[in-house]
Amino acid sequence: MGRHELEYPKEVINKVKRHDERGQYPKVIHPLTSTTTTANHSLITPLLISASYALKTIHGLINSSPLVHVSFNIPSSPFPATLPMIGQMGSFTRPSADISEPLDLYIHGYVSSRLMNLGRDASSGSGDDGAKGLPVCVSASHVDGIVLSLSAFNHSYNYRSAVLFGNATLVEDREEKLYAMELITNGVVPDRWRHTRLPVTGAELQSTSLLRVKIASGSAKIRDGNASDDRHDLEDQGLVDRVWTGVLPMYQAVGEPVPSSYNSQAGLPEHLGGFSRDFSVESKEYSEQAARKK
Amino acid sequence: MGRHELEYPKEVINKVKRHDERGQYPKVIHPLTSTTTTANHSLITPLLISASYALKTIHGLINSSPLVHVSFNIPSSPFPATLPMIGQMGSFTRPSADISEPLDLYIHGYVSSRLMNLGRDASSGSGDDGAKGLPVCVSASHVDGIVLSLSAFNHSYNYRSAVLFGNATLVEDREEKLYAMELITNGVVPDRWRHTRLPVTGAELQSTSLLRVKIASGSAKIRDGNASDDRHDLEDQGLVDRVWTGVLPMYQAVGEPVPSSYNSQAGLPEHLGGFSRDFSVESKEYSEQAARKK
Repeated sequence: MGRHELEYPKEVINKVKRHDERGQYPKVIHPLTSTTTTANHSLITPLLISASYALKTIHGLINSSPLVHVSFNIPSSPFPATLPMIGQMGSFTRPSADISEPLDLYIHGYVSSRLMNLGRDASSGSGDDGAKGLPVCVSASHVDGIVLSLSAFNHSYNYRSAVLFGNATLVEDREEKLYAMELITNGVVPDRWRHTRLPVTGAELQSTSLLRVKIASGSAKIRDGNASDDRHDLEDQGLVDRVWTGVLPMYQAVGEPVPSSYNSQAGLPEHLGGFSRDFSVESKEYSEQAARKK
Repeated sequence: MGRHELEYPKEVINKVKRHDERGQYPKVIHPLTSTTTTANHSLITPLLISASYALKTIHGLINSSPLVHVSFNIPSSPFPATLPMIGQMGSFTRPSADISEPLDLYIHGYVSSRLMNLGRDASSGSGDDGAKGLPVCVSASHVDGIVLSLSAFNHSYNYRSAVLFGNATLVEDREEKLYAMELITNGVVPDRWRHTRLPVTGAELQSTSLLRVKIASGSAKIRDGNASDDRHDLEDQGLVDRVWTGVLPMYQAVGEPVPSSYNSQAGLPEHLGGFSRDFSVESKEYSEQAARKK
């Protein structure tokens, strides 16, 4: 500890616009403790949204998201394309690297041919800024609650969202592919890899396409806390009495396991049982804590 | 009924690559009922992944997703950018239009200034293909379960994913803005709008930026069912006995409501109570049915 926390550089592309998100209201202050300074509108909005450039926070959000959304451009199309994929942060050259350290993002997905072809083409070329690989934007979002205020305008979500920008190239080295397959498998369910049929066959290895994204920058944005409202609404007691305000926590849960037709085990093995139990509990607890945060 | 179901045109940009997702294996067949025809690898993968171009399916997935991911390009950056936003399908000119009919996508989000400025600039200009507005790709994904197979290679998710491509312009008409605010508010929690403080103030209306996306194309991809494995693994009884196979259903749940510090209502009003109850139950049931689907 005591070491400076690593952050991604703040640049135009990843800068989180925190203070101007309510349009023309420049000042956001904590409710009930302060007055506002905006002239025509008493906005009692607390600093409930925080931005982070910390590698630890951003990498943690990516790793804990079951899916990430990967966006890239296709030369022939005016539209960017986005694919849901599975992503996990890691370092093949230094596998013991901590989540707070510079890491690559490994991504894997089914609808892969278009992206994989672009990644293959880009592996040998170079981008506009000299960087090798296909420019991608990878995002991961957790929805933690529905925030219900007096006015529709002040409704919101509690959420945690991360975005990474980088250049994607195809992983071609056999050992790195195996490293990434294990990383991603254990990223979905901890310790699953060594409980599957090993070794991976040559055909499987050949048919698995993986991309390594070298990260250029990133940021995270988190909203937590309960409802907030404007002073003129809070002072309207009839309104306050009429409208339920608060947070409906939302979380991702794991349900009762459904064995396959060929499963022959009576109960869940420990690596799955522990995961099943902990996932829902932790996810639920986070959403409730976020709603209660002052 | 009896009417032909409307579909988005299949084009290069939105075509779902269904049959080549396992790389070089061209044939996917149902397990236990057929033999495979691939030469060096007996792939017993059922047709568990389906593609859809039906407006009804795609619009339904977008509408039921708490957040959508909106991707667009920033002229000065080599990377596309992606923002989590709130989206809902609707038709301002024909509000009674069914979800299976052509609709616009209305989107709203906090980190808006960059995107809104681009949308504003693009509102008056025209894209490469003559279409007005900022080209965007909007995606929504539901994770419905973790599919655990004998081999890491055959692990998967049950999921439902939709993507829309279109051109975004800023909503400037006052009535259309109010329409979209109500649409989006009720999209998050049914019937919430009329339970909030109305009317919306002029300042709120002015500070709310909304985009309308005119849809060019879209597609959906759904994976359901249980685990599947290759024949050589299924014939290895020692392996089958050693590895738990099946699905851990995943679903989004609503937890116990957390009232705000200024809430004065004793219990949840019916529009919130019904939503709270139904949301988790329906989401859980879908994930379990998906895992049991033959």
